[in-house]
Amino acid sequence: LSIEYLPLPGLAVEDIDTPALIIDIGAADENIRKLQAWCDAHNLGVRPHAKTHKSPFWAHRQLEAGAIGLCASKVSEAEVLINGGVSDVMITSQIVGRPKIERLMGLAGRANVTVAVDREDNVRDLSEAAVAHGAELGVVVEVNVGQDRCGTLPGEATTSLARAAEAAPGLRFDGLLGYEGHVVATRDAGERKAGAEAAMDRLFAAADGVEAAGLPVNVLSAAGTGTYNVTGAMDRITDVQCGSYIFMDGDYMEVMDDFRPALSVLSTVVSRPAPDLAVLDVGRKSISMDRGFPKVLGIPGAEVFALSEEHGKMSVTQKPGTPAVGEKVALLPMHGDTTIALHTNYFVARAGKLESIVDIAARGCFT
Amino acid sequence: LSIEYLPLPGLAVEDIDTPALIIDIGAADENIRKLQAWCDAHNLGVRPHAKTHKSPFWAHRQLEAGAIGLCASKVSEAEVLINGGVSDVMITSQIVGRPKIERLMGLAGRANVTVAVDREDNVRDLSEAAVAHGAELGVVVEVNVGQDRCGTLPGEATTSLARAAEAAPGLRFDGLLGYEGHVVATRDAGERKAGAEAAMDRLFAAADGVEAAGLPVNVLSAAGTGTYNVTGAMDRITDVQCGSYIFMDGDYMEVMDDFRPALSVLSTVVSRPAPDLAVLDVGRKSISMDRGFPKVLGIPGAEVFALSEEHGKMSVTQKPGTPAVGEKVALLPMHGDTTIALHTNYFVARAGKLESIVDIAARGCFT
Repeated sequence: LSIEYLPLPGLAVEDIDTPALIIDIGAADENIRKLQAWCDAHNLGVRPHAKTHKSPFWAHRQLEAGAIGLCASKVSEAEVLINGGVSDVMITSQIVGRPKIERLMGLAGRANVTVAVDREDNVRDLSEAAVAHGAELGVVVEVNVGQDRCGTLPGEATTSLARAAEAAPGLRFDGLLGYEGHVVATRDAGERKAGAEAAMDRLFAAADGVEAAGLPVNVLSAAGTGTYNVTGAMDRITDVQCGSYIFMDGDYMEVMDDFRPALSVLSTVVSRPAPDLAVLDVGRKSISMDRGFPKVLGIPGAEVFALSEEHGKMSVTQKPGTPAVGEKVALLPMHGDTTIALHTNYFVARAGKLESIVDIAARGCFT
Repeated sequence: LSIEYLPLPGLAVEDIDTPALIIDIGAADENIRKLQAWCDAHNLGVRPHAKTHKSPFWAHRQLEAGAIGLCASKVSEAEVLINGGVSDVMITSQIVGRPKIERLMGLAGRANVTVAVDREDNVRDLSEAAVAHGAELGVVVEVNVGQDRCGTLPGEATTSLARAAEAAPGLRFDGLLGYEGHVVATRDAGERKAGAEAAMDRLFAAADGVEAAGLPVNVLSAAGTGTYNVTGAMDRITDVQCGSYIFMDGDYMEVMDDFRPALSVLSTVVSRPAPDLAVLDVGRKSISMDRGFPKVLGIPGAEVFALSEEHGKMSVTQKPGTPAVGEKVALLPMHGDTTIALHTNYFVARAGKLESIVDIAARGCFT
């Protein structure tokens, strides 16, 4: 194989073998800077969610730009971040069961680790483990702000759990977490704003109760990419936990254009069975479809209308014969997080040339 | 962490940390034996599709039971199989572009490798590479039997491509491939049979043309799990390429009960925000939903009705409080192949105890 085909720095993006997840690092860095600048101007901490990129490489770029720490969904994601040199991680899920709590203690001994809680029995389990390990673990009480998934209700349920956390040996009660995930992708900006405000009313009511009980709420963390400039504009919010803003995706681009799409999946035409049909070498194993079919970039009128495991069918309306078999086609996934989770590497490009290959280190880390 | 929590052989399945992909090896082996026995009785080769399991471990069990070789979707899947000791692999997709064709030649030098073609320019590219490498590569012409994805039409298009393959230096024309993927999951058995028959009429018409041109059709490969006993019962078919039969899934269990479900994803209840709601630690990153929400095993009336990236919401109708936070819940994915592709390891169990942890070696291999 001639050297011009090897995925070395300088290779033209369109010569990268496919399917490949391409990141335009210029766009990603601009997104990182833009959120940081906005939050700096609003005296707000940025704690980006690593569930999107699953990679210390991107975490460090966010930290260098000014982030106060990272969020992670799972203990295993936090392990990858902390092993990769990140020193402050908030796990936004409840960590249940002895094996995971033991792993959490291993992390708490060498980084500032905070975890979400929504039950007293879990607080007791975490406290006992922290005491046994001589560790200090931060906890935030997750408040159900309307997503109706995990979290306590505002009022006595939240306040009593905060009290329990504050009193528990080995734990450090940091404050409250509320994620308005049910409204972050609402298309209408007015509705999205109203939804975020209603959600934050619940979070602030919960915080009122906790503060009335004499407990300090040092952390009030909320917001996703779609609500960073609504939720983040509220004075009481201390930090935002946006994830998708770094790369965006087809779905979020329908919500807002505050950030630029930085990711695409490069594919190859492998068959042209009919003048209006091209078959691509991407399928459900290389591009997610939980938010719909990917958008075709750069070919007006072309649409992906079917994805099987390893094939995509693309309708072509422009001049017959193009794109030809062997030509590359770039696709914008509708959902970045679930697409990234399918891949092993980022092919990081700058100005159309490959710059580096970065492993998606926390791929498959869902324990 | 006490030794009783370590994932060592003998650990009870319900003590494995979650999310975890569990395989009941007894059920999987029975499925392997059952398909093999049926095909032996019908004088038919079994060439299981490795796109389901992505693992030499399972490939070798299929070969030991009597399979003639494996199928793979991609060059990278074939690499993992051949590196793992499999000596005969048919790639059921078109392999396009110099980098992949060069990798194919690396494989052809050390295993019997066959690849599907549907265009003359691709045949020429493969032939030139085979000659340059002194390799012999088998080719089968893929016939479009109604799936309308890749493949040639029966008649002159197929015959002329077969002639080109037969004449091409370095290539060995083996026969025809036709996959009736558009009917394998049709629920009604009569409709499924009629669909498979119509598809095979097209494959046989294509074979008639090729044979009339004086070319031998040694391989006529077709069938998926849902049509093994229809397509496979036809005299001219030489081998079947079923994949899902080894583990089955929720979708295929609605098609037939010839094989037993052997896979499940074990999860943990992490929150119980309401008497009728349990939140599980599985989401779209650990269980696929391209064929619908997973089915809950062992809890009558319980249903998963929402999956976000790392959480599943399960409605519970039985007595309040059960399952409790910390309890394990086993789920049957609706689509095995795309769920397996999300995981790193198989937790292989026998009679309810962990027997071994097997890596999903071809995970992420879609190039």
